Amino acid sequence: MTRLRGYLYPKSATGASSVVPAPPWHYSGDLLTVEYRTDPARVRELLPRPLELAEEDPGAVAVIWADWQSCAASGEELLDPVRSQYKEVLVVVRCTYRGRPYSRCVYIWVDKDFAVARGLHQGYPKKLGSIHQTRPHPHGPAPRIEAGARFGATLAAADRRIAQAVVTLREPSGSGGFVNAHPMAHHRWLPSIEKGKGLALDELVETAAASVDAGTPWRGDADLELFEAPTEELARLEVREPIAAYYRQVGTVWDGGLLLESHTSGAE
Amino acid sequence: MTRLRGYLYPKSATGASSVVPAPPWHYSGDLLTVEYRTDPARVRELLPRPLELAEEDPGAVAVIWADWQSCAASGEELLDPVRSQYKEVLVVVRCTYRGRPYSRCVYIWVDKDFAVARGLHQGYPKKLGSIHQTRPHPHGPAPRIEAGARFGATLAAADRRIAQAVVTLREPSGSGGFVNAHPMAHHRWLPSIEKGKGLALDELVETAAASVDAGTPWRGDADLELFEAPTEELARLEVREPIAAYYRQVGTVWDGGLLLESHTSGAE
Amino acid sequence: MTRLRGYLYPKSATGASSVVPAPPWHYSGDLLTVEYRTDPARVRELLPRPLELAEEDPGAVAVIWADWQSCAASGEELLDPVRSQYKEVLVVVRCTYRGRPYSRCVYIWVDKDFAVARGLHQGYPKKLGSIHQTRPHPHGPAPRIEAGARFGATLAAADRRIAQAVVTLREPSGSGGFVNAHPMAHHRWLPSIEKGKGLALDELVETAAASVDAGTPWRGDADLELFEAPTEELARLEVREPIAAYYRQVGTVWDGGLLLESHTSGAE
Amino acid sequence: MTRLRGYLYPKSATGASSVVPAPPWHYSGDLLTVEYRTDPARVRELLPRPLELAEEDPGAVAVIWADWQSCAASGEELLDPVRSQYKEVLVVVRCTYRGRPYSRCVYIWVDKDFAVARGLHQGYPKKLGSIHQTRPHPHGPAPRIEAGARFGATLAAADRRIAQAVVTLREPSGSGGFVNAHPMAHHRWLPSIEKGKGLALDELVETAAASVDAGTPWRGDADLELFEAPTEELARLEVREPIAAYYRQVGTVWDGGLLLESHTSGAE
Repeated sequence: MTRLRGYLYPKSATGASSVVPAPPWHYSGDLLTVEYRTDPARVRELLPRPLELAEEDPGAVAVIWADWQSCAASGEELLDPVRSQYKEVLVVVRCTYRGRPYSRCVYIWVDKDFAVARGLHQGYPKKLGSIHQTRPHPHGPAPRIEAGARFGATLAAADRRIAQAVVTLREPSGSGGFVNAHPMAHHRWLPSIEKGKGLALDELVETAAASVDAGTPWRGDADLELFEAPTEELARLEVREPIAAYYRQVGTVWDGGLLLESHTSGAE
Repeated sequence: MTRLRGYLYPKSATGASSVVPAPPWHYSGDLLTVEYRTDPARVRELLPRPLELAEEDPGAVAVIWADWQSCAASGEELLDPVRSQYKEVLVVVRCTYRGRPYSRCVYIWVDKDFAVARGLHQGYPKKLGSIHQTRPHPHGPAPRIEAGARFGATLAAADRRIAQAVVTLREPSGSGGFVNAHPMAHHRWLPSIEKGKGLALDELVETAAASVDAGTPWRGDADLELFEAPTEELARLEVREPIAAYYRQVGTVWDGGLLLESHTSGAE
Repeated sequence: MTRLRGYLYPKSATGASSVVPAPPWHYSGDLLTVEYRTDPARVRELLPRPLELAEEDPGAVAVIWADWQSCAASGEELLDPVRSQYKEVLVVVRCTYRGRPYSRCVYIWVDKDFAVARGLHQGYPKKLGSIHQTRPHPHGPAPRIEAGARFGATLAAADRRIAQAVVTLREPSGSGGFVNAHPMAHHRWLPSIEKGKGLALDELVETAAASVDAGTPWRGDADLELFEAPTEELARLEVREPIAAYYRQVGTVWDGGLLLESHTSGAE
Repeated sequence: MTRLRGYLYPKSATGASSVVPAPPWHYSGDLLTVEYRTDPARVRELLPRPLELAEEDPGAVAVIWADWQSCAASGEELLDPVRSQYKEVLVVVRCTYRGRPYSRCVYIWVDKDFAVARGLHQGYPKKLGSIHQTRPHPHGPAPRIEAGARFGATLAAADRRIAQAVVTLREPSGSGGFVNAHPMAHHRWLPSIEKGKGLALDELVETAAASVDAGTPWRGDADLELFEAPTEELARLEVREPIAAYYRQVGTVWDGGLLLESHTSGAE
């Protein structure tokens, strides 16, 4: 009898074809975070019940650029870096579930298929984008991580620029921001293959890092611009008031989450 | 109360952000199909129960290059063609389910995120690839669709060439091949977010075109090469005996499928 | 003694490495042309002496999308289509040289290196861009080449959209436009490797197709938008008055040009 | 009278469109160098007269991966990093000119147009490629720059993998290699626009960094593989004997070169 192997698709006799191996997934990366306040009504409209708006600072948004290298347990992807390196922009808000605070990724873009696939599993709504962020470097014109250093960051999708930021570092900080600081409350949704039959998968899951090994964050200021596009709504989370920006180098591990709710026959 | 809209992720107040709008999905494209026989044991090992090997010609495989333009009901993607055009290579075998013949896509690569997302819904195990196929043209050095015309086709993933073919057309044909001629029997699988808890989604679905408007197929010969790669197993479906090759221009519509089986707590 | 071979760089013992083989170069492609009038002063500022503004309709501009398959004499690139297919947007104005009318490409973007290299030789100032245009198709939702058919076309560079157009076809036409209808008057410039020494190469060349085999053009209307970008000046050629739009399928051959003037020690 | 501005093409009234601004050009980057010996005859066949084979260790080759951020004097590209970041693989041999030792880049691939354009000026024979190299990182699974650290590096062009290496660092080193340690002796060649008229530009130039600010190199071992491809000849420089591998972080400035010889009517 055939026993198909592979953590995700495509499954095969050996499992070698899977778009991503089984967790734990290990990451090294640089995070450039821009926090600001938007109209809380624009956050609320992205929160399906039973999620509720955060009580304190409900309009806070974080737009986070990340430049990653990632691998599964064997680490072999690091030596074939087209399989480990990817870039990401994620847009995070806060919410509450049964009175507890959560972060929630409402939009996200990446530039590799293995990152899309991990997002399906974790409930990140990943599209493809073209993503760039200035890298710190010890020599030449690129910035060091130090006071006054400036980092640029851009996002495009479907051949349109969606967001861009310039961040100026000011000083070391005790935190890397507060918006993306809680466990994530994400949905995993898939419509029924049959029209009009609602959702075949409708789960609310909690996901967070299994461990984090991070450097000292730097805090600074950001100039953030969001642009309209026919199939993107990031600009709807308009910038009302800047909060702060952060630069942080991190190592992290992801190794599974927690099912909060499952509704197998919910109306779509 | 918030009512989120959007056929797939990300959901929003308007639904405009969804990586793909709701079906029906309309397609115009050129299909270059190469059929051959491999060791039937290599087909069987890709068929999870309750699927069984086809009784007749069980080692038949089709490798199909497709150059698509697609859209939802409004057709607006056609006028912003970065949102409608994509290329695809799919690898199809046959199987039986409860005694009825089905086709099944075992490997597939595309080059756009909206195509990845449609595949998630339809059970196509899509990775990203770099895909090229010669286009017919009425003028200059590119081939017409006629006897003796030659078309090249290539597939790369993760910066490695995985497959290449050169097809020479011979004559008009009554069919475009037999391997991809049945409804598809696909799985939609997603692991539980909790480690060791098996599958959260485990469905066997049937999916087929709602309608097809196709031109006359041309039949010919192919020279097909498959290459090894660390994370691909297409070359394991080694070419034992060529069958035929086909060129066909088609219009088609997809508008939902049929749930055959669902196992909500199956062991992973 | 070593004899290096190769039409362009890199040269080698065999010549196989050259980014493009020697002419003649053969092309099959679809051209979507949008003609309009801008301020003639904006055209004049792009014409170095001894080129002068066209006497009649001096503000006419053509923005042309082209979807190409190309090859050298052997045609082998057509069977490995990643080496033959490319897309292009060129912006053309008219001028006069010694009283004779010429066309001149002032901006151009392509998406492959062999196309960049051919442009160096021919005096096309090629950058890389991301280019899309709707393709006609005999089946499904994509347009046929017929009255009322609509084609979209877009250009992005450095992750910003630079231009987009929607063209509606009206009727067959006796011509495919008048702006790009003359031989091209192009410069081939390269600065001295030594700072402050002016130009090492400063040629005015004439280049035109050696032969053309084209289908009947269709004429129509266009909605063209040009967008600002920090390193692009296409939007400076602002649309004052639409002229017409054209769709044409062509085969063509390029096989060398003519040196009009050479200034080997001109000030830069 | 029109005065066109712009260091390279396209020239315009403002100069803003030029694919690259005027030097000096500033660079920050990480270099992964693999040195080995090939058959000296394979090096000699890539050296046009008057260049001669190096007297000592004439078969030495360096394959160098580089991960760059670059900018002109204003530095503005660093804040729009799609315009500053690029990756590169260059293949370097040594030679002599009038008895003096030079390095010479015989093959090179980059992934941005501004890098292609700078190469035209400097005599680097640049094609486009897809290039990846492991990045050092202070946290998580990516390597630190330390003994035992392993870095992978890959090169693909036209959807085929051309080269890959895994480098293991052993210890700090007094040098970053000897093959790419001399000024470069490069040709700048362009055929006449008229067929059969030989070269319009035929220069031998010397180019070197105006200044370098580099970190301590690390020395190690490499496993290097070169692959055949129809339009690449890197594999012809077959690995006979490994020499060493190096990792180095550098800042550098380029600000013009020196014309060694110019032949304006040489036979092609």
